[in-house]
Amino acid sequence: MPVGLRHLEKLSPIKGIQLASDAAGLKKSGADDLVLMTVNEGAEVAAAFTQNAFCAAPVIVAKDHLAKRTPRALLINAGNANAGTGTRGEYSARQSCQAVARMLNLDETEVLPFSTGVIGEHLPVEKICRKIPDIVNQLDADSWIEAAKGIMTTDTLPKGCSRQLTIDNKTITITGIIKGAGMICPNMATMLAFIGTDACVDGAALQDLLKQVLTHSLNSLTIDGDTSTNDACVVIASGQAANQPLNPSHPDWPHFVSAMQSLFIELGQAVIRDAEGATKFVTLRVEGGSTETECRQVAYTVAHSPLVKTALFASDANWGRLLAAIGRSGLEHLDINLIDLYLGEINLIKGGQPVDGYQDSDGQAEMAKNEITVRIVLGRGTYAATVWTSDLSHEYVTINAEYRT
Amino acid sequence: MPVGLRHLEKLSPIKGIQLASDAAGLKKSGADDLVLMTVNEGAEVAAAFTQNAFCAAPVIVAKDHLAKRTPRALLINAGNANAGTGTRGEYSARQSCQAVARMLNLDETEVLPFSTGVIGEHLPVEKICRKIPDIVNQLDADSWIEAAKGIMTTDTLPKGCSRQLTIDNKTITITGIIKGAGMICPNMATMLAFIGTDACVDGAALQDLLKQVLTHSLNSLTIDGDTSTNDACVVIASGQAANQPLNPSHPDWPHFVSAMQSLFIELGQAVIRDAEGATKFVTLRVEGGSTETECRQVAYTVAHSPLVKTALFASDANWGRLLAAIGRSGLEHLDINLIDLYLGEINLIKGGQPVDGYQDSDGQAEMAKNEITVRIVLGRGTYAATVWTSDLSHEYVTINAEYRT
Repeated sequence: MPVGLRHLEKLSPIKGIQLASDAAGLKKSGADDLVLMTVNEGAEVAAAFTQNAFCAAPVIVAKDHLAKRTPRALLINAGNANAGTGTRGEYSARQSCQAVARMLNLDETEVLPFSTGVIGEHLPVEKICRKIPDIVNQLDADSWIEAAKGIMTTDTLPKGCSRQLTIDNKTITITGIIKGAGMICPNMATMLAFIGTDACVDGAALQDLLKQVLTHSLNSLTIDGDTSTNDACVVIASGQAANQPLNPSHPDWPHFVSAMQSLFIELGQAVIRDAEGATKFVTLRVEGGSTETECRQVAYTVAHSPLVKTALFASDANWGRLLAAIGRSGLEHLDINLIDLYLGEINLIKGGQPVDGYQDSDGQAEMAKNEITVRIVLGRGTYAATVWTSDLSHEYVTINAEYRT
Repeated sequence: MPVGLRHLEKLSPIKGIQLASDAAGLKKSGADDLVLMTVNEGAEVAAAFTQNAFCAAPVIVAKDHLAKRTPRALLINAGNANAGTGTRGEYSARQSCQAVARMLNLDETEVLPFSTGVIGEHLPVEKICRKIPDIVNQLDADSWIEAAKGIMTTDTLPKGCSRQLTIDNKTITITGIIKGAGMICPNMATMLAFIGTDACVDGAALQDLLKQVLTHSLNSLTIDGDTSTNDACVVIASGQAANQPLNPSHPDWPHFVSAMQSLFIELGQAVIRDAEGATKFVTLRVEGGSTETECRQVAYTVAHSPLVKTALFASDANWGRLLAAIGRSGLEHLDINLIDLYLGEINLIKGGQPVDGYQDSDGQAEMAKNEITVRIVLGRGTYAATVWTSDLSHEYVTINAEYRT
């Protein structure tokens, strides 16, 4: 059951971007599993991919194509990750790009392939190619929600959001969709995320912006610590809003960055809300560090602790497990006697020891909520970091023990 | 259910060491929860403790006492970890040492305290002190199995083993006991382990020996990646066998080290066999690394992956998750195309791709076993490392979600 995740009712279309979703027969359920996005000529595209050394065939091909041309089309399939499939997998990914290129009169390097699903099974590329003519005919600017559904795997709900702002007296729209519910500990990008805007943005500025906003959004999530083989995030700026090209010297640049950052955080949080088996949405805020890196190190150690995660599932205010995880996080000269710990507004630990008068029942009341903020103050500096995570439930074990059956 | 762990039938007594176990009322079940060990004068004692920055009060006191005197008595309680209890916790630990010292006519610094159990509750030290006169009267050389039972928490079976060897025509005996089934990722020592031998060993050599054998035994285990706050391992050499003092220049030193190493491995493996909710005993062997450190890094990343652990629970030969974990383990310039992967004797992956003719059913048959060896060959050097771990089952979630209820 997703935690505080609403049904998607509306996503704003983006001038210059068209989408379609269909069922190519890759998902056993018969649900949509193939999505095509097309991008107008002159658009700028920035992308980020998994840092996992074992990266999937479509990641290899997409990086290769990106290095050669600005993309005009993105083909995404769910139900099969095309990972661990070797040279045959790369060949299949290229074949699917060729099929799209033929129909749209593009070069195959102008098409980027993306896959998500089971690892280690060969991509049924003929099923995909057979569906291309149909899906091309369904392209439409208003199909973002259908696309968000088409890229789902263990996700229980489609995830996406939109923002609008004014720049140069033009209305700028940003819309993004995302999928992912397990094998989530993004490093550069999360499972699959596609963000479009009609803003006109300089290419280099767009790539820098993507890197910047990722750090504090998709790269600050973890469900299970398992960085995927297929992570990819693409931002498309169609330029159709006809504003002055955005870059750091444009007066509205901070405004645009802030809208992007907020959209990326909402997309990232949606993944945690829909985490496999999740019953809790957890914000881990680590403050008082001597660097941001060490704050993130503590936050990730806590977020990955199976004992912390099972305590969250049990709504058990087990601060001993929190302190134990902080203590093993590998920070040099960490002094537990300087640490303060909060659950929501409740201060449990002050200077490494339970606060006078703290009652377990106060902590339990906070832990019983669906959305929990754990605040850890290290007392050794002024840096901070936030990481979002979920709990470890029976349902997580069931989903991942039965994934291939 | 423990995996391949037999009921303890016999542990050899060690001349110079006496033990007793009793119930002080710390465990709700009424089972034994207090153990006393005494050591003859002239014995050498080496110890290792948790590297967790958040270490328990008894760890702080034991380190302090060890720095001052050679221990003559060890007092161990289960049911309460005396961790996160601040200065009051340290005071309680010292009080319990004083109670033992009074009865045995020792200085309080000759007594080491150890605790294991729930974190963050104050130690009911008066219950412990009240029981000391009784337990002193029960001291006996043949109570190792009773002691192994008395130190249990979520353990389902007592764990220990013995070894004998001949040095200088004297029979040397080594006996060890260990507890721990969760919060296990030892860093210097595991939860609680006590090893006795009647060998005469130089003090400095004993400490070096401990460090050496720990690396490839208790420090190569992980159940959940959560390093405990109370880890401690103590080796006592009573010297009663009257052999020539053992040190690296004694011709039988390698013989003695090898017996110790084998006993430590058996003790460590017993913890994994009794891991919380475990249905599998898993040996992760990483070969072909350019350093031992990087082999351990890969092994621990795989061992901590929730996706690998749930696949093990499901007996699913999901090599994609294994490769994904190897790929995210952080090794620089890791080339997935050089990696070979074996389940038992079955070669699944050669050069990063499925072996021609490999059938999923072959892998599943191997995964269906209770004891599984996963062998990962990195193809970038000659170093190797072995780590032992368990799977992630529903029972693990249940045990840790309900631990404090």
